[in-house]
Amino acid sequence: MLKLNFHPTGRHFLQIPGPSPVPDRILRAISLPTIDHRGPEFGALGLKVLQGMKDIFKTKHPVVIYPASGTGAWEAALTNTLSPGDHILMFETGQFASLWNKLATRLGLKTEILSWQGTDEHLPNAPGWRRGVQADLIHARLLQDKNHEIKAVCVVHNETSTGVTSNIAAVRKAMDDAKHPALLMVDTISGLASADFQHDAWGIDVSISGSQKGLMLPPGISFNAVSPRAIEASKTAKLPRAFWAWDEIIEMNKDGYWPYTSSTNLLYGLSEAQDMLAEEGMDKVFARHQRWAAGVRAAVTAWALPIQCADPTVYSPILTGVITPVGVDADAIRKLIQQRFDLSLGTGLGKLKGRMFRIGHLGDSNDLTLLATLAGVEMGLKLAGVKLAGSGVNAGMDYFAKNV
Amino acid sequence: MLKLNFHPTGRHFLQIPGPSPVPDRILRAISLPTIDHRGPEFGALGLKVLQGMKDIFKTKHPVVIYPASGTGAWEAALTNTLSPGDHILMFETGQFASLWNKLATRLGLKTEILSWQGTDEHLPNAPGWRRGVQADLIHARLLQDKNHEIKAVCVVHNETSTGVTSNIAAVRKAMDDAKHPALLMVDTISGLASADFQHDAWGIDVSISGSQKGLMLPPGISFNAVSPRAIEASKTAKLPRAFWAWDEIIEMNKDGYWPYTSSTNLLYGLSEAQDMLAEEGMDKVFARHQRWAAGVRAAVTAWALPIQCADPTVYSPILTGVITPVGVDADAIRKLIQQRFDLSLGTGLGKLKGRMFRIGHLGDSNDLTLLATLAGVEMGLKLAGVKLAGSGVNAGMDYFAKNV
Amino acid sequence: MLKLNFHPTGRHFLQIPGPSPVPDRILRAISLPTIDHRGPEFGALGLKVLQGMKDIFKTKHPVVIYPASGTGAWEAALTNTLSPGDHILMFETGQFASLWNKLATRLGLKTEILSWQGTDEHLPNAPGWRRGVQADLIHARLLQDKNHEIKAVCVVHNETSTGVTSNIAAVRKAMDDAKHPALLMVDTISGLASADFQHDAWGIDVSISGSQKGLMLPPGISFNAVSPRAIEASKTAKLPRAFWAWDEIIEMNKDGYWPYTSSTNLLYGLSEAQDMLAEEGMDKVFARHQRWAAGVRAAVTAWALPIQCADPTVYSPILTGVITPVGVDADAIRKLIQQRFDLSLGTGLGKLKGRMFRIGHLGDSNDLTLLATLAGVEMGLKLAGVKLAGSGVNAGMDYFAKNV
Amino acid sequence: MLKLNFHPTGRHFLQIPGPSPVPDRILRAISLPTIDHRGPEFGALGLKVLQGMKDIFKTKHPVVIYPASGTGAWEAALTNTLSPGDHILMFETGQFASLWNKLATRLGLKTEILSWQGTDEHLPNAPGWRRGVQADLIHARLLQDKNHEIKAVCVVHNETSTGVTSNIAAVRKAMDDAKHPALLMVDTISGLASADFQHDAWGIDVSISGSQKGLMLPPGISFNAVSPRAIEASKTAKLPRAFWAWDEIIEMNKDGYWPYTSSTNLLYGLSEAQDMLAEEGMDKVFARHQRWAAGVRAAVTAWALPIQCADPTVYSPILTGVITPVGVDADAIRKLIQQRFDLSLGTGLGKLKGRMFRIGHLGDSNDLTLLATLAGVEMGLKLAGVKLAGSGVNAGMDYFAKNV
Repeated sequence: MLKLNFHPTGRHFLQIPGPSPVPDRILRAISLPTIDHRGPEFGALGLKVLQGMKDIFKTKHPVVIYPASGTGAWEAALTNTLSPGDHILMFETGQFASLWNKLATRLGLKTEILSWQGTDEHLPNAPGWRRGVQADLIHARLLQDKNHEIKAVCVVHNETSTGVTSNIAAVRKAMDDAKHPALLMVDTISGLASADFQHDAWGIDVSISGSQKGLMLPPGISFNAVSPRAIEASKTAKLPRAFWAWDEIIEMNKDGYWPYTSSTNLLYGLSEAQDMLAEEGMDKVFARHQRWAAGVRAAVTAWALPIQCADPTVYSPILTGVITPVGVDADAIRKLIQQRFDLSLGTGLGKLKGRMFRIGHLGDSNDLTLLATLAGVEMGLKLAGVKLAGSGVNAGMDYFAKNV
Repeated sequence: MLKLNFHPTGRHFLQIPGPSPVPDRILRAISLPTIDHRGPEFGALGLKVLQGMKDIFKTKHPVVIYPASGTGAWEAALTNTLSPGDHILMFETGQFASLWNKLATRLGLKTEILSWQGTDEHLPNAPGWRRGVQADLIHARLLQDKNHEIKAVCVVHNETSTGVTSNIAAVRKAMDDAKHPALLMVDTISGLASADFQHDAWGIDVSISGSQKGLMLPPGISFNAVSPRAIEASKTAKLPRAFWAWDEIIEMNKDGYWPYTSSTNLLYGLSEAQDMLAEEGMDKVFARHQRWAAGVRAAVTAWALPIQCADPTVYSPILTGVITPVGVDADAIRKLIQQRFDLSLGTGLGKLKGRMFRIGHLGDSNDLTLLATLAGVEMGLKLAGVKLAGSGVNAGMDYFAKNV
Repeated sequence: MLKLNFHPTGRHFLQIPGPSPVPDRILRAISLPTIDHRGPEFGALGLKVLQGMKDIFKTKHPVVIYPASGTGAWEAALTNTLSPGDHILMFETGQFASLWNKLATRLGLKTEILSWQGTDEHLPNAPGWRRGVQADLIHARLLQDKNHEIKAVCVVHNETSTGVTSNIAAVRKAMDDAKHPALLMVDTISGLASADFQHDAWGIDVSISGSQKGLMLPPGISFNAVSPRAIEASKTAKLPRAFWAWDEIIEMNKDGYWPYTSSTNLLYGLSEAQDMLAEEGMDKVFARHQRWAAGVRAAVTAWALPIQCADPTVYSPILTGVITPVGVDADAIRKLIQQRFDLSLGTGLGKLKGRMFRIGHLGDSNDLTLLATLAGVEMGLKLAGVKLAGSGVNAGMDYFAKNV
Repeated sequence: MLKLNFHPTGRHFLQIPGPSPVPDRILRAISLPTIDHRGPEFGALGLKVLQGMKDIFKTKHPVVIYPASGTGAWEAALTNTLSPGDHILMFETGQFASLWNKLATRLGLKTEILSWQGTDEHLPNAPGWRRGVQADLIHARLLQDKNHEIKAVCVVHNETSTGVTSNIAAVRKAMDDAKHPALLMVDTISGLASADFQHDAWGIDVSISGSQKGLMLPPGISFNAVSPRAIEASKTAKLPRAFWAWDEIIEMNKDGYWPYTSSTNLLYGLSEAQDMLAEEGMDKVFARHQRWAAGVRAAVTAWALPIQCADPTVYSPILTGVITPVGVDADAIRKLIQQRFDLSLGTGLGKLKGRMFRIGHLGDSNDLTLLATLAGVEMGLKLAGVKLAGSGVNAGMDYFAKNV
């Protein structure tokens, strides 16, 4: 028998950039008894959460909810709209953009990946991982594509591996300016419901998201918001698909049901999350995350450690990457912090391994949660012998006290 | 705001053949706070539930746990082992065998479906849906396949749409007797952990299951148990796959992790379910379901309504299908029962629509739960004007009182 | 380590006359994190539940909520209003009236207990335990009390040990007709929120209740509804009291607080219970219990076993006592039923020990719950060799099917 | 309908000295379905928690568990052992000692209260509220009591209003040295299970405690640990008692039951709490609280604010009182902190009103919880214009980082 209460004493501080801390109210909701997925109560629940997702994605068009975690929704976006060998254009903002590229390749698509070509003092091997999507590079590439062989442009809204929130409206504009018909697909797995996101207004064809970030649910369900153009493309797309196929799901969703068994208890949580977000108001939710991010960056600045995101115009409101000094193993610090202070931080992924860690500031958090997190980080850095220019916790306190 | 407490008063009776009633203990487990999917506690949890699933499947080989519902595990079994256009042999035992066939076709496989060719008095349009897999038909067909073009034989262990539990060992023997190298794939979505199942001993290559039946969890996770031959096949199989790909998952599972975010809170429930099953002992669990099924069949017999399964050697211990008299709409009765008595029964699926209903006897149930169910059914049948030969509830009470 | 999941498989059937089955919604509410009993949120919660209790007691005057179980509220009613040696008049309707008498005696009061003086065929040693409060006997006794030495008349509204719901308005009328100034105290521990109760309209001075019956909460909190006359009496009453003293509690309740730490998590449940009752409407709640009781009595009548309550005008809507044949040990049957069918029934208390059992039909129940209960009882009676005239379950089904 | 999720976003920080933060594991336990208080499962639960409480009180003699909050257990200690007009000696260590005195007076006892008679710079009106019980004063008073009119000595172990943990063994020694037969009664409501406590070894006759502090449960149940001498005294004690009477409870406890309905769901939590404490080991639990307290005091010292407890030998491991500068309203600061940072602190009670606040460091806490608390306090003090000598948070981080 395994004890499921893992933590020694007190609440664990789960400050990774997702799964995010789940509110008690949502945890209670998902523990309600499972109901008949073909009964009338389920239909009411289904219609409610489907409409709620449209509101959150800011779309009038269908949102598909999968009983599968976020990676599946990436796959769904591609298999529903593309055919084997199709050429797609991606932009390397970090590990998740890279993983999406890898997944697309496994599915038999021909991917081309753009990246920022500057140099970087702190992370010479990953300069592009400190910046957002460069819309001008996409624009230039699309202009070259006279024959419109590029079928889709795929970008990440909030790059979870780096803490960069790209300007999606600019990408749309670049595509429009190039008069290119490619579909625009956007991964907002960690962006949705924490940072502003406008599926319709930004002209996105497929938006991809998951439950375990801004929606504050446990992992396990994921989303595709789909434009009419995407649906049109799905009618001729030839990649094999069944579980992920939009057609049957959208058809049955009209009555609030799914062709197969949905993840009922997570839908309870989704309903509760939608209520919580609506009660607070999305604009307030976004402002709350911006304020948290600013407080955390104030701390990092006080420590005089470089912030992973090198471009202040695309700082993420959801997480902040912190680069550790050369020779300091960021993962050893993370481990020390986890063992001593029961605080989980995000690791440096892919090219960033060992060179940075990530502080999540999303989900069921507040000023004190974040200050506790900063305290855990500061103690851990010091215990690891990292010289800090000043107290990040003090800087964080100053920021939070002065900014309501 | 939607109220998530749907039921008027008292506990809802969820007696469909899955999702099954979830024990309170498991509902509490899934409500524990979500943890870091990359932290040490998660690794311990992962290793525990992976080993637990091996025990339940009775296999020494890998079990893959997907953060996706059961239909996905069907897809995974096929995409990992087969190539576009591959020929597979299926057996039509009911709606789920048919749906799996449809899914395979969508994925670009060439399916051939065998079925029992007798006649049936009660359901002339679906004679084969009252019987199990006929191993002799498979044997005969495989013998014809001199060139071994058939790459896989796919059968359903417990056909959820009818209440028939096929003899899988007999299928294996038929394949062995025919000396045919096709892979054997078995859907035991609703069979596992309620009826005996032996992945290794029965020589199965891929077993498919889900969480929301015998494992007594909410829906949302699913399984592939895979033989060495299946893994070998996956190395050359050409159907595109990424989310479902076994290779990376099995690799990372060695340390208890997954390549993407697992459905953490359902894994808590899985751990708890494994503990509950182990505490009781699997043989007792199977015997319990057999006894329940016998009690329910005693009731149906007393009503003098035909049991969907026409072959007593393959009665399902998990659910019992009941055929309604000609001219009586089974779904109208189900609706009446749901509205008047807060009892959910399974509908007649596909060819059976309106002609039968299904009583689930699995999950968190006991004698009184089932007698309450029988009472709800008996009242509903009478209210709908169906003439009954006797009281099924009395017959059920007799059975349960006499058989400990 | 003790496993807190006591039951072998399936839901336990808790059909004692309280603690009653607690709705899942309430169980989730009481599991929310505890808050500061001096903070603003607590004040809002306090004001809400206090007002809600006034609505349920149908009073405009204070209701005191104790962080203590029901027996404490009995003591509170007496110690707040009476002085050592005071003479009080009680009426023996069953075990709880007797226990209240015993408690009053321990507190130093002089009690006089009236009882019905007829004879009874089935329970010759407890004839009065089959009937309600006889208002005419109270009237006659009060007329004799020219000097008004009797300070209080104490009666039980719903006698939990027998299944009799006395007419409280008739008691009030008897007191008025006798022009007697005694206080009227009514124990409605098991009556409130299941049977109609009108603290103000019935001229009650102190009503006593608890959480674990009609309010569908776990045990742990209890109530005194107090009239202005009762408060006036408390100013001169001399029994020592501190924890139970109304004065400080009522004063602090004005802002929603208590002088000491309240049972916060049970107050969460109380708030939820009040919402549930208000959503359904109290009249529907009462009608629901009346219908349940009629269905259960139909079963007992079919068995041809005597109902404990011999007077149909005071049948309890909350529980039904069933007398077992002479020579049959009711407790042995209860034990057998508990062990075989995981069903808890109420025992015969005091004078009724071994001669009867009680079926609770309150709390989170419905038609099927009660039919399951009747099935458990019927099987148990038969297994114990009791001859039954017919099937109570069938009679219950007939009743529930015909009466919506 | 009142929303029971009171807090805006993130976890509330409940850092009052009780009710303490309740572990998630306990919250889940108390949400399990209520069982029959007369059934076999309840008996097993009862025996387990009763034995568990003996282990925690470190006694071989009975522990009485009341379904009532802590104030009731005070009353129980007195009413079971004393007679009207009995003379008892108390010691004024703070508000709770004063309230116990008031309660005793209401019950008709003649109380005499000793207090420290020195002067105090910071709190001239409450010098004794900054120190522990002075055993020498008790010794001197008992020596004067030649006729042994003093029937009981009542002291508080951990004074929740001040943050002082008195030396109970010294009190026992003073009584022994004076050869005085008075009973020794000790309130360890907030001390038990956080600070060492030895009912038998310290020769205590009645120990009083509650659930909502070191036991980490919600409020609602409370305890009397009773010595053979106390039981002997109860046989002749004449204060009226019924609900609180030990005799019937201890008798029925032999089988794990209570004479009336216990607070079942809180007993689930108690069982879980006992398991958690036993898993960690009581000595580690005590050391953990000592370390927390030292870290918090390091912060207060860095701010250069006076600690309420003026005697370092009796610093409480459970809470720390902080005196605010003259002219600064401590309650205004608490309110500001609660509103801005969702952090609850304890108020200054009685004589301390407005002059101090209390930081609880007990229950489900850890280093980061406490650092968050210190951050909330530090920001609040600064926002209120209080000049601080240095950063308490930094001092706390230093302490926690250096001391494992």
